[in-house]
Formats: sequence, structure tokens, C-alpha cells
Amino acid sequence: VVFRTIDRSSISNTEVLLRPLLKWLSPAAERLRYILREDDDVPTPTIFTEMDTLQREGDELEWKESARWVKFEEKVEEGGERWSKPHVSTLSLHSLFELRTCIQTGTVLLDLEGYSLPQIVDDIIERQIEEGMISPDLRDKINFVLLRKHRHQTKKPIHRSLADMGKSGSSCSEYSFTFYQGSSCHAQSRSMNDIADAPSPDQLRNKFMKKIPRDAEASNVLVGEVDFLNKPFVAFVRLAQATTLGGLTEVPVPTRFLFILLGPQGKAKSYNEIGRAIATLMVDDLFSDVAYKARDREDLIAGIDEFLDEVIVLPPGEWDPKIRIEPPKKVPSAEKRKSVFSLNEVGLMNGTAGGGGGLSEDEEMPVQHELGEELAFTGRFCGGLYLDIKRKLPWLLSDFYEGFHIQSISAVLFIYLGCITNAITFGGLLGDATDNYQGVMESFLGTALAGTVFCLFGGQPLIILSSTGPILIFEKLLFEFSKNNGIDYMELRLWIGIHSCLQCFILVASDASYIIKYMTRFTEEGFSSLISFIFISDAIKKMVGSFKYYPINTDFKPDYVTTFKCECLAPDPSDRQNVQFSFLDVLDLTYFLFLNVTALDWSQLSKKECLKYGGSLVGNSCKYVPDLALVSFILFFGTYSMTVSLKKFKFSRYFPTKLRKLISDFSIFMSIMTFVGLDMLLGLKTPKLIVPTEFKPTRPGRGWLVMPFGKNPWWVYVASFVPALLVTILIFMDQQISAVIVNRKENKLKKGCGYHLDLFWVGVLMAACSFLGLPWYVAATVISIAHIDSLKMESESSAPGEQPQFLGVREQRVTGILVFVLTGVSIFLAPVLKFIPMPVLYGVFLYMGVASLSGIQFWDRIKLFMMPSKHQPDFSFLRHVPLRRVHLFTLIQIMCLAVLWVLKSTFLAIIFPVMILGLMVIRKMMDWVFSQHDLAWLDDLLPEKEKKKKDEDKKKGKEKDKDKDKEKKKSKAEYNLVYPDVVESQWGAYCQHAAARSVF
Amino acid sequence: VVFRTIDRSSISNTEVLLRPLLKWLSPAAERLRYILREDDDVPTPTIFTEMDTLQREGDELEWKESARWVKFEEKVEEGGERWSKPHVSTLSLHSLFELRTCIQTGTVLLDLEGYSLPQIVDDIIERQIEEGMISPDLRDKINFVLLRKHRHQTKKPIHRSLADMGKSGSSCSEYSFTFYQGSSCHAQSRSMNDIADAPSPDQLRNKFMKKIPRDAEASNVLVGEVDFLNKPFVAFVRLAQATTLGGLTEVPVPTRFLFILLGPQGKAKSYNEIGRAIATLMVDDLFSDVAYKARDREDLIAGIDEFLDEVIVLPPGEWDPKIRIEPPKKVPSAEKRKSVFSLNEVGLMNGTAGGGGGLSEDEEMPVQHELGEELAFTGRFCGGLYLDIKRKLPWLLSDFYEGFHIQSISAVLFIYLGCITNAITFGGLLGDATDNYQGVMESFLGTALAGTVFCLFGGQPLIILSSTGPILIFEKLLFEFSKNNGIDYMELRLWIGIHSCLQCFILVASDASYIIKYMTRFTEEGFSSLISFIFISDAIKKMVGSFKYYPINTDFKPDYVTTFKCECLAPDPSDRQNVQFSFLDVLDLTYFLFLNVTALDWSQLSKKECLKYGGSLVGNSCKYVPDLALVSFILFFGTYSMTVSLKKFKFSRYFPTKLRKLISDFSIFMSIMTFVGLDMLLGLKTPKLIVPTEFKPTRPGRGWLVMPFGKNPWWVYVASFVPALLVTILIFMDQQISAVIVNRKENKLKKGCGYHLDLFWVGVLMAACSFLGLPWYVAATVISIAHIDSLKMESESSAPGEQPQFLGVREQRVTGILVFVLTGVSIFLAPVLKFIPMPVLYGVFLYMGVASLSGIQFWDRIKLFMMPSKHQPDFSFLRHVPLRRVHLFTLIQIMCLAVLWVLKSTFLAIIFPVMILGLMVIRKMMDWVFSQHDLAWLDDLLPEKEKKKKDEDKKKGKEKDKDKDKEKKKSKAEYNLVYPDVVESQWGAYCQHAAARSVF
Repeated sequence: VVFRTIDRSSISNTEVLLRPLLKWLSPAAERLRYILREDDDVPTPTIFTEMDTLQREGDELEWKESARWVKFEEKVEEGGERWSKPHVSTLSLHSLFELRTCIQTGTVLLDLEGYSLPQIVDDIIERQIEEGMISPDLRDKINFVLLRKHRHQTKKPIHRSLADMGKSGSSCSEYSFTFYQGSSCHAQSRSMNDIADAPSPDQLRNKFMKKIPRDAEASNVLVGEVDFLNKPFVAFVRLAQATTLGGLTEVPVPTRFLFILLGPQGKAKSYNEIGRAIATLMVDDLFSDVAYKARDREDLIAGIDEFLDEVIVLPPGEWDPKIRIEPPKKVPSAEKRKSVFSLNEVGLMNGTAGGGGGLSEDEEMPVQHELGEELAFTGRFCGGLYLDIKRKLPWLLSDFYEGFHIQSISAVLFIYLGCITNAITFGGLLGDATDNYQGVMESFLGTALAGTVFCLFGGQPLIILSSTGPILIFEKLLFEFSKNNGIDYMELRLWIGIHSCLQCFILVASDASYIIKYMTRFTEEGFSSLISFIFISDAIKKMVGSFKYYPINTDFKPDYVTTFKCECLAPDPSDRQNVQFSFLDVLDLTYFLFLNVTALDWSQLSKKECLKYGGSLVGNSCKYVPDLALVSFILFFGTYSMTVSLKKFKFSRYFPTKLRKLISDFSIFMSIMTFVGLDMLLGLKTPKLIVPTEFKPTRPGRGWLVMPFGKNPWWVYVASFVPALLVTILIFMDQQISAVIVNRKENKLKKGCGYHLDLFWVGVLMAACSFLGLPWYVAATVISIAHIDSLKMESESSAPGEQPQFLGVREQRVTGILVFVLTGVSIFLAPVLKFIPMPVLYGVFLYMGVASLSGIQFWDRIKLFMMPSKHQPDFSFLRHVPLRRVHLFTLIQIMCLAVLWVLKSTFLAIIFPVMILGLMVIRKMMDWVFSQHDLAWLDDLLPEKEKKKKDEDKKKGKEKDKDKDKEKKKSKAEYNLVYPDVVESQWGAYCQHAAARSVF
Repeated sequence: VVFRTIDRSSISNTEVLLRPLLKWLSPAAERLRYILREDDDVPTPTIFTEMDTLQREGDELEWKESARWVKFEEKVEEGGERWSKPHVSTLSLHSLFELRTCIQTGTVLLDLEGYSLPQIVDDIIERQIEEGMISPDLRDKINFVLLRKHRHQTKKPIHRSLADMGKSGSSCSEYSFTFYQGSSCHAQSRSMNDIADAPSPDQLRNKFMKKIPRDAEASNVLVGEVDFLNKPFVAFVRLAQATTLGGLTEVPVPTRFLFILLGPQGKAKSYNEIGRAIATLMVDDLFSDVAYKARDREDLIAGIDEFLDEVIVLPPGEWDPKIRIEPPKKVPSAEKRKSVFSLNEVGLMNGTAGGGGGLSEDEEMPVQHELGEELAFTGRFCGGLYLDIKRKLPWLLSDFYEGFHIQSISAVLFIYLGCITNAITFGGLLGDATDNYQGVMESFLGTALAGTVFCLFGGQPLIILSSTGPILIFEKLLFEFSKNNGIDYMELRLWIGIHSCLQCFILVASDASYIIKYMTRFTEEGFSSLISFIFISDAIKKMVGSFKYYPINTDFKPDYVTTFKCECLAPDPSDRQNVQFSFLDVLDLTYFLFLNVTALDWSQLSKKECLKYGGSLVGNSCKYVPDLALVSFILFFGTYSMTVSLKKFKFSRYFPTKLRKLISDFSIFMSIMTFVGLDMLLGLKTPKLIVPTEFKPTRPGRGWLVMPFGKNPWWVYVASFVPALLVTILIFMDQQISAVIVNRKENKLKKGCGYHLDLFWVGVLMAACSFLGLPWYVAATVISIAHIDSLKMESESSAPGEQPQFLGVREQRVTGILVFVLTGVSIFLAPVLKFIPMPVLYGVFLYMGVASLSGIQFWDRIKLFMMPSKHQPDFSFLRHVPLRRVHLFTLIQIMCLAVLWVLKSTFLAIIFPVMILGLMVIRKMMDWVFSQHDLAWLDDLLPEKEKKKKDEDKKKGKEKDKDKDKEKKKSKAEYNLVYPDVVESQWGAYCQHAAARSVF
């Protein structure tokens, strides 16, 4: 074995000897450019680094794992038997410089053919002896030390640990103040089989494995002090093939790199720091590339120099090195750093190096507002619709199978509850407004029908259709109009529906939806916050209403309970003729009076009956209802605040991540269940959700189908074109704005959207619902946002400490369809649903409203008003736009919303969506008040500007070209030393100082 | 002027020329040691640094402030007209190296006699020309540039800014995409009077001044690119006297240092970075010392090298340089860094340098548990008491005048409410237990008397006296005993009080309180969490009680209100003899019956009257009370959660710090007022605070003074010694444990404490209260902690970004005295206090209990059970003690508390404080289970160990001495280069690379 090893190492040796001829032909960067460009297409594996330090365990030496890196550092706590939190590795400049010396002076073996640790160690020692760096008599000693057992820090489940407590408790008590020596009571696994090739059971059992990417390779750092050396023994090895070297690594990942540092005693801390430095370098994306592709020692050093160039330095007086820095949310991509080396121009390099130095000046302008090709004007008949179908069709299958996920259950429950609450609320209001021509029953059926069809065939199945306020007001006005003019309401409505449907088709065929792209963040956020405010105010109004509906008797004195009563007194016979009876009541009463006129026990009648039969309620507790208002408030507020706290629970420190995520996902369901349970426990007669149980139209007089002809004069069929136009505008705006909000770039939707297709189906459903006498439906902003929020996906955090990234939304049709099918069958679920108190549902409403406000930049800006500028969060627009301009922008937005809010409360609500057009006009006018630069940060630029901007760009382009030339010259200049003679001695001088502090 | 200038500069020039002879006689550190040791007693002023960059404003050049440093960096946001949040300056290694070159090659003028900017600039240019660094024809150009106007970033009040909006809006719209050029619409002040000596009005008006220490001096950094230079023009100037140089600085702070960097065009960013580097260095405590004391250029460079040595490096792949790092809570003190240079041993230096490198290994063991000399055993008669008085007397005056502070008002209100709630609760319970011998009236008087006396004369006036549970139980048992055995309760109680008082005196005279020092954190935290739990459970019990007291009628149906009534029916005459009358009632009733036996209108009677006169209540609403339970719950929970949120409001981002602090300080008062208001608004008959209004003993039979003799046989006077012993132990433990908790090291009390003095006064009050027939009082843990919490002082944050530090507690006697005087006069405040509903006060109780739990390590450790180890906070004990041991320790503590909790609920509660002794025994036994190392981190070491430890220390000491020798050798070894020949070229090589990227 020894012979072969020597043979092989001598080959690589000659290679190494040849390579230095290239040395300093070009600066370090030039070198890196060369090697990194070589084969850029083969990505290098991820590196897992483990650092083991040499420890004395009783009389035995052993290697004990002391830290590990996947991306961030995890340290074994001194006496802790536990891993520290992943943190950013803070290094000292010294250790990096010393590492550089190590690589420069130590043995570097690249592409060594290694199959086992003993053989590799042999090769290294042989090389060192050959080069005269150590005397041959140290061979056995070094060999002995390097082949000691490796003990890894493994995580034990807590129940096992607790069981161990008693045991270890007694055996550990004596190890008191020994810090640096391990002790037998640590929960570590010791790998005895360093020479075995197969991974040990301990390695395989290690759960940490799932945090490491599949293709990963290991780099092992071994540092320690020994008593027989008088100068450091350093080796950096890259194996030709990644090989599992027995129990060297805690996880069964093959080793590719090996860094060994043994040195004289007394400098353990410095060695440790050097070990941390190389480990940090190895997990650096750029350096690991260099390590894989390095041809010789100089390449590695160039890599270190590059690393040093981009290092971020914290001044010692402003930071405590003991603080473990939490991994940042986002780390600049390594690609950007690497790309520098694939570029041909040397000039550009300095820009990056300078940028890496900690400046924020080079932040780029926000990207141009772009709604994508979905809204491009095709100019062809149905061109947009055709493209929409073409775009969505390939996803159809995945739209179904991707819906089967645990998260969908919670989403369905959440949105279902939102939908039926909405259906009941609007159903009740519609019933009032149209004299029960459309009631709760129609509302349920319509929601189910429209929703299911839209989710099955629509362009954006994440949109939830619902009745909306403007439609409600339109129906109300329409009903009053027809009643006053003797026109049949249902037939008129049918014709308006038909006209509106046709108008929608025209809009679809002519690609009219493209005008939506003039809607910027300003309009969008204005609209959605207005809708959110309406949700919030409605929820609170309902709640306050219950205090009116169940008035509290504030005069009640517990001791005088005997004086509080409410009695039904028989009416004075002389007054009886004055009582008004309705038709039905009369029948009832007549029957009743016939049966036992005199025997009527008035005191046994209920409040309603008493009033019905003309009795009068006498007593001081008649107007009051105890407890119900307060319980309603507790249920309402409890549901809301419990949902909010459970949602936040995801970010708490307690319980494992998965459980927390589950709790957070099901927060609404859990709060509803809790407060339904509380309500049942109290057993009070709180107002409950009432779902119609029989399948028949709400108004007895009407059937399920509306006939188009017969009841109204012919001109009505034609004239209904005019109101239909209003409905169409209303529907178009409402639908498309919600669609824009759902399709926001922030949601990272991947399957594209279909504005034209959406509108097409909304049109079809308009007609269908009109024929069946059901309400009309459009996209509901708040519920759609809630739908998206409940379907958001996050990456499972890969490397420890890395923040989970928002990946996108689970785009599928299953949740939507299930929600509406459930809504449809809710008629049969009445026995279960009747346990849900309405205040709980209002609480859910409030939550929906508040939740859809968060994440809106407008809302963030409003909050800025109340913050002193030093406490304001570091929003990127604040770095670029003066605060006063930001405030002005926000103020304008607030005023617009205030005007809209007032208009909404009048009869003008009917043209409410049209007023959104007004917002767009105001946005247009703001071009005169704000600079394009400010608007680009606070809003998006309007597309009309595109042409102008291009012109400007051209102009600027020329200037920029000039600038670029300058830049080039600049950058080149930066490579020319101004004081070439002085500089070198300068650096030398500092380094002399630095070296004076060196370990070596 | 020119002549004189040349003259002066040439003098300093020769100095500079002479100094380099000393160069490299010693390494940089040796240099620093020399200059920093020179006159260590004169502290150098704080430095405020302002960096101005050269900007082209239209056709004019001007200096625009771009960043400033007090301790942390504040940047002027690019287009923001605003200061960024203070953040840690992240630098690039490059800029630091380049700065080093600047100092090495540029002009360094130390102790220049400068009185105005033009003269200083002249001097600099003259020197550069002299040294041939620039050609004389550049003199005017450089002069022109350097004397341009300075424009500072000043903060405008927001209302002015809003007024400016319209104006600037129109004038600004055209400046659109120009980033680097300033514009006329910025809200900056321009200082026109650069040559004037007096500070400009703008400077004087600057509010930022108060953030800068009074003795501060300014360092001005001027960087910019100009077109007429082809190599950089660098100067570092230290003035002999700090001088106000016109409008150079934004605040009227005299300038001491000036760094000027002008360079060829195209490298503005690099110049900027170099400017930031020197500015960061100037505010570094160590470097600023160096800058003040430097004798020559080399000293400055040695300072930079030292700085580089201690710098903290973040790897580029793990951190985004764009993130602005928030200032840490605590920064390692500069003293530690400086002290290195005052020590003679070179050896120690490396330790610091290594430690500065980001390692936590060198954290020290927690300090030995030390209760201070207050508890030392003097061995003399009344020795401790004498020392206590001696210690407290000098503070007596300040104890009064330090109490006059706005914070005291909130503290008084808070504690007052706690005290009267306590007085009422315990008064009510005592009244029940002693058949009104002691009632609410006695409770109020006793609290006022005992509290005032104790706060006036006690050793620790922050302690609040109150009735406590154990005393209550003792009184109960005592009353029952005397009733059953025909002994006069009040007289017996008086004798017990007298005996107990004498026993207390014996304990005081014999310094018995010293045994308290065997109480470690384990016992202390166990006791205080137990008390907190009792508070919490009591508050919740009271709340639940109100649901029983005001039962809710869950069967109530709003519609059937007519069937719910409660009527008082006259008793069946045949049953009348069965009715039981109490003595008083009989009198009353007889009178009543005489008057109108038959005319009694039973239906008009109240519930109580009805039952009194033997009527029966019939009806289904008799047992129920509407609304009150629910309103009580809302008031209770609302008060609690509002207090918690308002307390937290201090850490929110909204509103200025002062307002937030005010809100947080008055949180309890504000929540009480809010919910009292809500209660008044609802107008329900919630249970209110009832304060006795007449000044007379609760029980009619007794007077205000208890006579010692006459009612009991003589042996009772002697035998009462035995129960007195129990009371004494009870009082001693209760009092002293609370005192230990109050005197905790964490509270940073400065005026010392007086355990013996405290006990003395408690004894005196025992006797006094016994004579007056008032309850006995001891220290109440929870209220005392609340008292301390409400008096905590924090430093006004000085430098922007620096965290306010907890300074200590406002130690005084005023708040305590006021609280108890108020309690005394509460009898006259009844008309106001009667508006406070009891549930609100229970909410305050709950808050007190919960708040006193926070900050207890035991509680933190319990939370750890529910956290996966990766989410656990970075507690220092977790870094050092294995998690399983921590959990075991916590489990033992929990079990102890559970046992105590169970015992407390039985009659054993009377010996409850004695059981704390049990805790101390258990703690002693834990020495066998846990290593001293673990205990030192989790708890404190017991003082018995001291001797042993000293022995061990001696042993270890010897070993340590050996170690130290080794260490010395080590450190020296670290200064010896192992590869002296290689190293230098190594560093040179890296630096060559680094230099290739240099600006120069």
C-alpha cells in the first residue's frame, strides 16, 4: 500500500511542481476567472463541513466534533451536549491570514486517489517527509494521532435523554470543573469503525441527514495540538473521488476535502480559529467552486484573497464578537459573485468588489410595472380568450392532482365558512331588498352553482365568486323601480342579465380587459383597502347591532329581582277592533278565537304570540335580553384574537416547526371550534347560523325558472340594455380589479391567469343565474385574498438557519370546487351548522378584513405617520424617496379613499366600481406632482410613459454609453497604481505587524 | 498669514522628519502601549464625526453632509432628506487598507495651530507643495474647492415639512432621475459663513446637539473627486486646540481633527468608503485615544493595525452587506481593550486579540454568590443593626428629595391600588375568620400605620408591608382555639405579639439574619414563583367566583321573557314557627310585625327582605343574575390585557420614546381608568370596591386599645411564648426572603439594605399592632417587586442607536410613605373609590402575579421544556450546562413547588415559611446530584463551600501558576515566527493582490 501511495502522490507532486511556473502571471482574480470559466456548466456539489478537534479523554486521545456547517455555523456548546443555533460565522482577520499561511506553507494534495483514511494519512505524511518538512521519526506519532476515533455530537430524542438523566447524573457529578476534557456522560456516539468503508448505523440513523442536499460532499477539518511537534503540520487534501472514510463524518456523506492542522501545544484557540476559517471558506459558494477546480496551491490562495476582498468588516467598538448573529433572511446570491469571473471585462470587477464592501448605493430602481402578456392587446377577434385557454389548458390536469394536500383541508374549511357567512348575510339582505324574490336559499344555490362552474372552467380558479355590495344595491334599486312602475321584476332582471352577458362577450372578444394594465399599485391598493375597511366595519357594525338587538338592562339590581318581570296582559276589549291583522294571522287567530275565545291564558303566551294576539307587554324587563349581547361580544372578540394569536404562533419559539405550522394553518378552524364549544358549554341562546333546510324558493309564489316573455311589454326587453350597461361596467371593474390583486407579482403565481376567460364565464353565469332567478356573482376581493393566503407554500428550510422562502401559491381548482360543493350541500348540513353562533362568524369576518390589510404597502405607509423617523422600518422606498413626499403620497391616497367611502354610503354606491376609474385618473394627475423617480419607488410607472421613457432612455442611453466609457477608464485606472513604489511597502508594513501576531 | 503658516508647518515638519528614526524599533502594539500609557489619567473627549462629500449643485460645488457618527453611523438617505437609523458601520477590508495607505502617504499635521479653515487649508497645501507632492499651481484650485460652502442635513419638524410639500412638489418634479446631484428642494440648511468663528443660528438650533456629550470635539471628514488632480490629495490634521471652524460642522462642536481626501475623478465610491473608514476609526474608543496622543504618522498606523486586529469579519456568502446592522444591546467596553496596553506583560495581549476574534470560549464562570457585608456575622451585640443604621443614615436626606419625580406618581398610584385591594381582601377574610374582631377598617388602619412607619424608618424602604396568607391562617386557628377554650382572643393575641416582638429583638441583636445567605437562587425563585402563582390563582378564583355569585340563566329564551319571573310569596302561616330568626332580625321583625302584620305587601319586598321575613321566592329567574358575571369577566380580562399591551408599548415603533415611556409607566392607571369608565358607561351593578366610611372598629364591642391584663389567667401570658415562636419564625422567613428578593443584585440597588433594621421595625410594629388590635404585617413579595419595577430607571440613550441601560431603582422613601398615607385617608376617599369595580382590581392582581414571574430564570427554564433546542434563546447557562441537566434541575424545582402548593392548601399553610427551610435543605442535597460547575451556572454556590473551594483554589492556583507560566511561554512563542522567512513574503503576496485592487 505504501508503495502505491508514494507512487501516486509523486505523480500529483510533479503536477504541483509544474504548475507554479504559471504563478503570478496574472493577479488572483485573473486566476479565478480562468479556473471558474473552465467548465462552468458542471455545478459543484454542496459541501457539508465538519470540524473535529483533538481532545484528551482520560488517557485516550480522540477527535471530537466541535462544529459543523451546511451554510451557517452550528457549534457544539461547551458543556452543552447540544448544537447551538445556526449562526453567521464571525471570524477574526487574523485567523484568515493565518489560514493563508497554512495553505501557502502546508502540504496541498489535489486529486489524491484516496480510498481510506489510513492510506490518505500515509500519503500526506510521506509527502511532508519527502519535502523535508517533518523528520521521518514523527511518522508513527502523527499517524497514531490522526487515526484516533471520532466522536460525533448526535441529537438524542428528549425522552431518551430524560431517561438517561438519573444514570448520567451520578456518573457525572465528579467531573465538575473540567471544561476542555470530554466526559463519559455526554450523549455522543463514538464511531469505532474509522477504517470501515460502510457508513455506521449511527451515521445512518442521524436525522440531520435530511438537512443536507442529496448531492452533498463532505469536507473534514481536523485541528488539534500535540506535544511532539514543534512546528505546525498542515495539509489540505482534495480527493479525486468523494469517498466515505468510515466514521469520519457524522452523516453518511462521502468526503471530498480534508484539512488537517496539528501544531505544538498551547495554541489550541488559534488552531480552532483557523479551523473555523477554512470551514467557513469551504461552505462559501465561490471558494468551494475554487476548491473543486483549483489546479494548484496558488489557485486556493487566490480564492482566499477573493474571499478577503468581499469580506464584511465590523468595527470592534460597535459590535460584541460574542453575539451570535442570526442568519439573515436573504443572502446575496453567489451567482452574482461568480458571474464577475465569467465576464470578459476586468473593468466590471471592481464594481462588484466595491459593492460587496457594504454599500447600499448601488441598489437598482424597482422594475417596471409589468402585467405580463396576459393583458396584451392582440387585435384579433377573441385573441385574448384564445391565448387564455391555450395558456391554462396544459395546467388542467395538475390543477386537480396538486390540490390533494393537507393544507387544502384547512383552506377549504376557512373559505367555506367565509362563503356561507357571506351567502347568509347577502341572502338575508337580498331577501329584504327584493321582498324574498331572492333569499337565503337562492343565495346558497347561486353561490354553489356560480362558484363551482367558475372554479372548474375559469382562468384563475383561486378567485372566489360572491355577491358584492354594489350588486346588492343595484338589485334593491331595480326592485323598487319595477314595483313602482308595475313591471315584473324577475323578467326585467332576466333581460338585464342576458344583455349584460352579451356585453361581456363583446368585451371578451375585443380584448377590452387590456385597459386594466393602466391600474397601478395606487389604484389596486386603494380598492383592496377600501374593501377591507368595508369588511371590518361591517363586522363591527354587526357586533354593535347585537347590543341593540339584545339590550342590556342596566338598571337591574340583583337584590330586587322580584320586581323585574314582564307580563302579557290581555288587551282591553274596547280596543280590540284597532288591532291590525295580517292576512295569515287573521286565519290563525280566527281559528284560535273560534276554539276558545275566553279560555285564552294570556300569561302563558310568548312575547311574539302576545303581541300577535293584541296583548300588551307590561313590566320593566320586557325590552331587555340578559347576557346574550355580552356573550356575543366575547365570542366575537375571542374568535378574532385567538385567530390572530394562533396565526402568529408560527413565529413563536415553542414546539417543533411542523406543529406550529399546523396550528397556524388551522388557526381559524381551531378558534371557531373553541368558541363554538364555549358557546355550547354556556348553553345560551346566542344567534346561530340558520341554513334553509328545505329545497324550495324562498318566496312561495315563484318557481325555479324565470320565463323570458309574457309579463312585461316588448320595449322593456330592449330598454333593459341601458341598465345592463351599468351592470356590465360594474361587473367588469369588480371582477378584473380583484383578478389583478389575486394575480399580483408578489403571489408568485406560476400557471398564469386568464382575464378574458374569467370575464367570459362571469358573463355566462350572469345569464344562467338570471334564468334561474339566482343572484349575480363576481370576484370577491377579500375572500379571494384569504383563499390565496391559506394556500401559500414555503420552502422547507434546507440548511439549518436558512429562512424558509415563499415559493408561491398552491394553484389548483380542487379547494375552490370543494368549497362551493360544500356550500351547495350545506342545506343538508344544517344540523351541524346550526351550532355555529353568528358572532363567531363575524369574528372570522373581522379577521379576514384585517388580514387582507397586512402586506399592503399603503397600510405600511399610513403607519409611518405615527412613527418617529428613527424608528421607521428600513423600507426600500424610504431609502430613496424623501419622507415628506411619501407622506404626501399617502395623504392623497387617504383622501381618495375617504371620498370613496362617503360616496359608497350614498346611492352612488351603485357606480362604485366605476369610481375606481376615478382613482386611475387621479393617479394619472399625480404624474404632475411627483417625479417619475419617486413614483417608481412608491407606485409603478404608467405604461403610457413607456414610449416617452424609451425616448428618454435612448437619450440617456447615449449619455450612459459615454458614462460607460468613462467607467471603463475608471475601472482600469483603479488597477493602475498611483504610487506603485509606495504601495507595496505599505501593505508589507501592515502585514509585518499582522505577522508579528501570527501563530506561525 | 502665509508666512506664519509656513513657519509653523515647517516646525512640525522637522518634528515629523525626526520621528521616523524611531520607526520599527518596536512593533505597533509596543508603540501604542507607549503612547497610551503616557498620561492615562486624562480622559480624551468624545468625538463626533461628520463626513461631507463634494457635490456639484448646478454650477456650484459644495460640501454636502453625507453621514455622521456619535457612536454608530447615521447616513443621509440618498433621496431621502432624512437620517437613516443608526447602525453599525460595515466596512470593506479594502477601504481600511486604502485608508492605511492614505495615512502613510498623505500629509499628517499633528497639533497644528489652527484658528480658521482658510488658514488650516493654507497650511496643508503649503506642506504638500513643500514636500513636492503637488505642484504649486494647484494651490488656488484646491483652496477654492476646500473652502466651498457646507450644507448640512437638518431635521425639520414634520408640520413645517408638510407645509413645504406643495412648494417643493412643483419645484422638484423635474429633477426626476438625477441621483447624485443634489437639488434645490432638499430640506437642508446651508451654512454660508464658513469663515465666521461664531456658531451659526442653524448650528445652535440643531436639536441633535443634546445627543452629543458636552465635552465632545468634532472630527470632520471631507472627501470628494475633482477634475484637476491626477493623484489623491490626502491630509490628516490634528489641531492643537479644538476650534469652531465656522459652518464646517452641523452642530456647534469645536473641531479637533480634519481628514481631507481629494482625488481624481471616477472613484467617488472608493473615496466615500475611505471616508467612512476613517470616520468609523475616529469614533472607535481605542483609535480616538491613539489619534489624540499620536506623536507621528507611525502611531496612527499602529492604531489602524490594532483596529484591524480586533475587527470582526463576516463571510460574504453568509451575510448581505446591504443589511444595516442594528446596534447591539451591549458593546464590549473599550476599557478592556485599552487595559491591554497598560499591562506590562506582552503575553496577555494575544489573549485579547484572539478573544476579539469572535469566540465565546473565554466567557468566565458566573461570579460567586455574594450577599454582601449586610449579612456578615459581626459577633457583637446588635452589631448588624448598628451597621445597618450606619449604612442607611447618610442616605436619609436623599431618600426624600430623590422621591420627587414624575415616575413616582405612577408608582404611587399603582402600588396604592394594589395595597387597598389587598387590604380589602385580607380585611374581609380576617373579618370572617375572627368574627369581625379585625375587619376591613382595622386592615386599612393597620396597613397605613405599619407601612408608613416601616417606610420612614426601615432598612429597605422599597419593601411594602402587607397582610400575608400565613398570618391569616394563623389568626384563624388562634381565634378558633381561644373561642373553644374560653380564652379572650384579643388579649391572647396581644401577648403573642409582645413575645414575638421580643423574640425578633433577640434575633436582631444576635445578627441571626445572616443565615439568609444560605438561600440561593433556587430557594429565592421557588419562593417568589410560588407567591406569584398564589396571586394568579387567587385572581382567577375570584373571577370564577363571580360566575357562581352571579349565575347565568342559560335556559333563558328571549321570546319567552314573559315566563321568567321571581315572586316573593308570603309564607304559609302554619309553617311560620319553623322559620329561624337571628337575634337582630327578631327585633327588627317584631317591630315590623307589630306595625302592620297584615298589610305586608310581599310582592314589593326585595329578595333579601323576602327571605328575612320568611317569604319564599318562587319563579325561574330567582337564582339568576343577568349580565354581571360576563361584564365582570370583560372588565377583568380587559384590564389585564390592556395593561400587558400598554406595558409592551414601550418597545413599539410608534410615537416618540418619551410618550411611549409615559404610556408604559402609566399603563396600569390607564387601564384602570379605561375600564372604570367602561363600567360607568354600561352602568351595571358590578361589585364595587367598598371602603369603610366611618372611623370605628368593625366589631361594635371592641375599643381601639387592647388591655394586656384582666381577661385571661396568668399562665396564658407565659404560655403564649410558644405560639409566638411560630409567629416569629413565620415573620422572620417571610420578611427576610422578600427582602433578599428585593435586594437582588439584578436590581442594582446602591443605597444598601438593612436586614436587621427591617426585622427590628417589623418586631416593633408587631407589638404596636397587637396593642391596637390591628392585623400583623410583613413584607409582601409580589407588591414589593411591583414597587421596584415601577421605579426602575433607564439611562437616556446618549449616542443615537445606543440601547438605554438599566441604571437601577429610584431608591427613596417618598413613594412608600405616600402609598400608605393614601391608604390611611382612603376612608375619606370612599366616594371616589366606590366607582372602581372589583373585577378591574382582580385584573390588576393577575397582572402583578404574571409580571413578577417574568425575569425569573426558573420560569425561563420551564419554557425551555416546550422549545425545540434549535429555537431556544441563547441563555448563557445553556452554553455551559447540558440541556438534560438543566431540565433535571427545573424538574426538581417544579416538584418542590408542587409539594409546597399542596401543603399550602392544607392546614400546614401555617408553617409555610418554615417549609422554605425545606427548600434550602433540598438545595443542599442537590450538591450530590449536580456538579459544582453546573450549579454555578444554574444557581449559586453555597457559602459552606467557600472554605473547601478556597482549598481547591489553592491547589488549582498552583496548577494555574504553572499554566500561567505556560501561557506566558505560549504567548511569547506566538510572537516568535515559526517560519520567519516565509511569513513576510506570504503577507506580501496577499497584499500584492489587495493592492492590485487599490484606488491608489
